[in-house]
Amino acid sequence: MNTQAADIEILSEEECQALLQSRAVGRIGLVEHGQPLIFPINYAADDRAVVFRTAPGMKLSAAPMTRVAFEVDEIDPASGVAWSVLVLGVAHEITSTIDDVSERLRELVVRPMAPGDRRHWVAVRRHAISGRRFRLQPVE
Amino acid sequence: MNTQAADIEILSEEECQALLQSRAVGRIGLVEHGQPLIFPINYAADDRAVVFRTAPGMKLSAAPMTRVAFEVDEIDPASGVAWSVLVLGVAHEITSTIDDVSERLRELVVRPMAPGDRRHWVAVRRHAISGRRFRLQPVE
Repeated sequence: MNTQAADIEILSEEECQALLQSRAVGRIGLVEHGQPLIFPINYAADDRAVVFRTAPGMKLSAAPMTRVAFEVDEIDPASGVAWSVLVLGVAHEITSTIDDVSERLRELVVRPMAPGDRRHWVAVRRHAISGRRFRLQPVE
Repeated sequence: MNTQAADIEILSEEECQALLQSRAVGRIGLVEHGQPLIFPINYAADDRAVVFRTAPGMKLSAAPMTRVAFEVDEIDPASGVAWSVLVLGVAHEITSTIDDVSERLRELVVRPMAPGDRRHWVAVRRHAISGRRFRLQPVE
């Protein structure tokens, strides 16, 4: 088989945005003392930020005001298509910040999937969004 | 609704290992110039390492000999159960290393899902594995 990286389609910002808003579960990546960590989270997104709710703990203590990654993907063997979207940005706690942007972000509906009291809101203000789509390779 | 974090079940190392080996797609988290990044990858795992194949490029140039995270999860609305497993370790390229461990790891079957020539093998020698399982919260 002779496939090339050219078979990977780079998605436009508009396509990335539409895919980002089509899902409810993604993964946040952050760095704690030099160690990258990844956690699945429920989220909501608009065209400027990804928002999630969390309990006091590692995700909250490590993330605010640090650079984070947020990723969503779909790998669908039935259709043979896979895509992923990556958001890069800085995490800010917006639980009680009083400004138009924070207030609008807190109106997004975020349903935490995990049990527990998740009263803290964190917004990832995005600096970059990118995505790619490709056909899954047939099994040889 | 009054749910507590105690509803989250911490998985044993044996359970984490079984879940890790039950899947073929996960996400690798790495840090490039202070910026965490996440990419979906096909992988294989044994009880010491997670192995994937990659083309020359960012994943390969940023990952080797650095601390990385590898995460797999399943969120199943049908059964109402979700779990995630997180592996922490150091990435090493093992494409042409000659030692028993590398040779055994290269015998694992890894089918890259993305097109392209992915002749480089990377192993994440694991330092820690952890996981949790919980019932999805009903929509209010």
